[in-house]
Amino acid sequence: MWLSVPANTDFSIHNLPFGIFHTGDDRARAGIAIGDHIIDLVAAAEAGLFGKIRLFKKVFAQNTLNEFIGMGKSATNRVRRKVQDWLHLPAAPANAARLLIDRRSATMLMPIRIPNYTDFYSSIEHATNVGRMFRPDNPLLPNWRWLPVGYHGRASSIVVSGTPIRRPWGQIVPKGQETPVYAASQQLDFELEMAFVIGKNSELGQPVTVEKADEYIFGLLLFNDWSARDIQRWEYVPLGPFLGKNFGSSVSPWIVPLEALKPFRVKGPKQKPAPLEYLQQKGKQQYDIDLEVVITPANSAQETVLSRSNTRHLYWSMAQQLAHHTVNGCNVQVGDLMASGTISGPTPGSYGSLLELSWGGKNPIPLNGAITRTFLEDGDTLTLRAGAEKDGIRVGFGEVSGMILK
Amino acid sequence: MWLSVPANTDFSIHNLPFGIFHTGDDRARAGIAIGDHIIDLVAAAEAGLFGKIRLFKKVFAQNTLNEFIGMGKSATNRVRRKVQDWLHLPAAPANAARLLIDRRSATMLMPIRIPNYTDFYSSIEHATNVGRMFRPDNPLLPNWRWLPVGYHGRASSIVVSGTPIRRPWGQIVPKGQETPVYAASQQLDFELEMAFVIGKNSELGQPVTVEKADEYIFGLLLFNDWSARDIQRWEYVPLGPFLGKNFGSSVSPWIVPLEALKPFRVKGPKQKPAPLEYLQQKGKQQYDIDLEVVITPANSAQETVLSRSNTRHLYWSMAQQLAHHTVNGCNVQVGDLMASGTISGPTPGSYGSLLELSWGGKNPIPLNGAITRTFLEDGDTLTLRAGAEKDGIRVGFGEVSGMILK
Repeated sequence: MWLSVPANTDFSIHNLPFGIFHTGDDRARAGIAIGDHIIDLVAAAEAGLFGKIRLFKKVFAQNTLNEFIGMGKSATNRVRRKVQDWLHLPAAPANAARLLIDRRSATMLMPIRIPNYTDFYSSIEHATNVGRMFRPDNPLLPNWRWLPVGYHGRASSIVVSGTPIRRPWGQIVPKGQETPVYAASQQLDFELEMAFVIGKNSELGQPVTVEKADEYIFGLLLFNDWSARDIQRWEYVPLGPFLGKNFGSSVSPWIVPLEALKPFRVKGPKQKPAPLEYLQQKGKQQYDIDLEVVITPANSAQETVLSRSNTRHLYWSMAQQLAHHTVNGCNVQVGDLMASGTISGPTPGSYGSLLELSWGGKNPIPLNGAITRTFLEDGDTLTLRAGAEKDGIRVGFGEVSGMILK
Repeated sequence: MWLSVPANTDFSIHNLPFGIFHTGDDRARAGIAIGDHIIDLVAAAEAGLFGKIRLFKKVFAQNTLNEFIGMGKSATNRVRRKVQDWLHLPAAPANAARLLIDRRSATMLMPIRIPNYTDFYSSIEHATNVGRMFRPDNPLLPNWRWLPVGYHGRASSIVVSGTPIRRPWGQIVPKGQETPVYAASQQLDFELEMAFVIGKNSELGQPVTVEKADEYIFGLLLFNDWSARDIQRWEYVPLGPFLGKNFGSSVSPWIVPLEALKPFRVKGPKQKPAPLEYLQQKGKQQYDIDLEVVITPANSAQETVLSRSNTRHLYWSMAQQLAHHTVNGCNVQVGDLMASGTISGPTPGSYGSLLELSWGGKNPIPLNGAITRTFLEDGDTLTLRAGAEKDGIRVGFGEVSGMILK
């Protein structure tokens, strides 16, 4: 490759994730991250890299990737291949300067318009931990091992990495009392999640099978499902989380195409009892992607790692989630986001939320510099990172980060 | 008025609801229902009825009302006034034939693109009835009288009246067993609901107060939240309804503007305990709108009235629902739909679901012609109707109807 990229970059030639960016006054447009650069896909289309110049220029000169993604895998994979070919030219082509943008000069925007957002609950460690706190005798509910439990979330308040999150106010029942007060949440939390982006519409009334699921999945991004535990606890019975979640969720700006993640496929955990037939699957359905959560507390420049986990801990696969979501005929639409739920591992250092890490606030977590946290405080910045590595190939997600505002 | 309309029409000159229609090959466009006609708003814009011909032609020549609604109440109310002026001309104007379309020749389409859909649970009778079946000792949960309980629903599967509904399949636990099977739902139900359509974006982080709520509500439509009770029962703990609901919901095609409903405002039920300050409201916050549910069973042309209810039974008002939904900073978007939840009245004949009417399937409901129903069967058509009347003024919603397919 004629373009030099940092040795450990998330954005290797094997990755080529898609995003939407602008540089100052310029209009929003699509790009591919490569090392410390962005390939400007409008400029690449104009240079004829993909053929059909007018078509590709039009779909890339937009403020979301929806239309491009909706062209289907033949188009999106063709763009990936053509970019790889271009990067593999024997020497820097004459149009290199026109197509490449320094990533530091770009501002990343929401990569997609999200018509529908669903959040699953697919980590057995997380479900068991949370269950243990709320229902000590009966941590894992009877339905959990039979179906990928999920719920519909709020699409309007999903924001891109870097957007500050305002601490939500709402109804909270103070400790020892029975009736609520209106107050700022005192138990503001993150949730470490991975989400997939739907790349193909399905028909209302027509399930998507486990076998066909990958055709409908364009790619993955990192997802932080910010949660106000005190608001959630009071409101969530019987219809599920609402204001405890919908004040904001954050996504990483780069969507890693499913194709880039093939080398990192692994078998998931053994499922007991065996799922019903429509949820049965063969082969490697999980991904070996390392996850990291770091906090930079208010008035500090020093990060502390809060947790290290891995997507392979997920009990239910994306294919199973999608098959379940549509088994009743529910349709999916290009740009839909389906998040995994908090990805906790089996050990305390791998838990994916402060609720679990501080065990409901009982165990303050020591940070660098003699500071502790149970939940997030104003001015704290919370960052999720993710990446997979195998045989010298690295495919990373960059990060999703947000600071808590009062 | 020079145009004659049927005496008891839902679509009087006081109503003027907005919808999207086409007539055969024509392109989708916006219209206003009046008696047995539709006023073609593209033709009306071309005729200069609203001024700014190019602008209004553009916003009306679309397959959703979102852009028009997003222009704000000054624009939408101006269109209503200009149409009323036109209908009040001393004699039929020369352009009448060009602007008016026979409603029978039109096909109604989804009136809006719905970025986000929320379903509340705001009828105390419904919540108590359902609670009594599932939790006899503790029917109304502690949070119910403190906040308008709600959850996020699925926007993708909301369809317009007349669209058939396919009976969903999913995980169901057979009676007396503990583990699920994959089967067609045997407890397919309707829910009688009224929904409001958001007409103005709010800012993420900025609550909409009870006092300002009406500025954000464009209008109302009838909503049927089809529900598969057997699927819902197994899946809904702890994260709420999912596949038991998201296979389809139906809306009436005409959005009745809030302004047309002013004469029918009434005080809601007394709220005890007094709500927290952000939910307190003054004046008439409910609407006196009669509701009717009818079923036409498979292979029959004969309707039976299943229920008669009224929106005034709702405990929580739309203003309170919106204030609560946004109190944590959650933003709303033009076209968002917020449904009331099942509107049951205090008597068995006023219940808004078969779950309640047949009391969980225990009491078969006799229909005309010696047929009975506990839940919906294949080929049944279920229709909701609504209308308000006062001092000789009638404002109706038409209907939302759907047939169950195998």
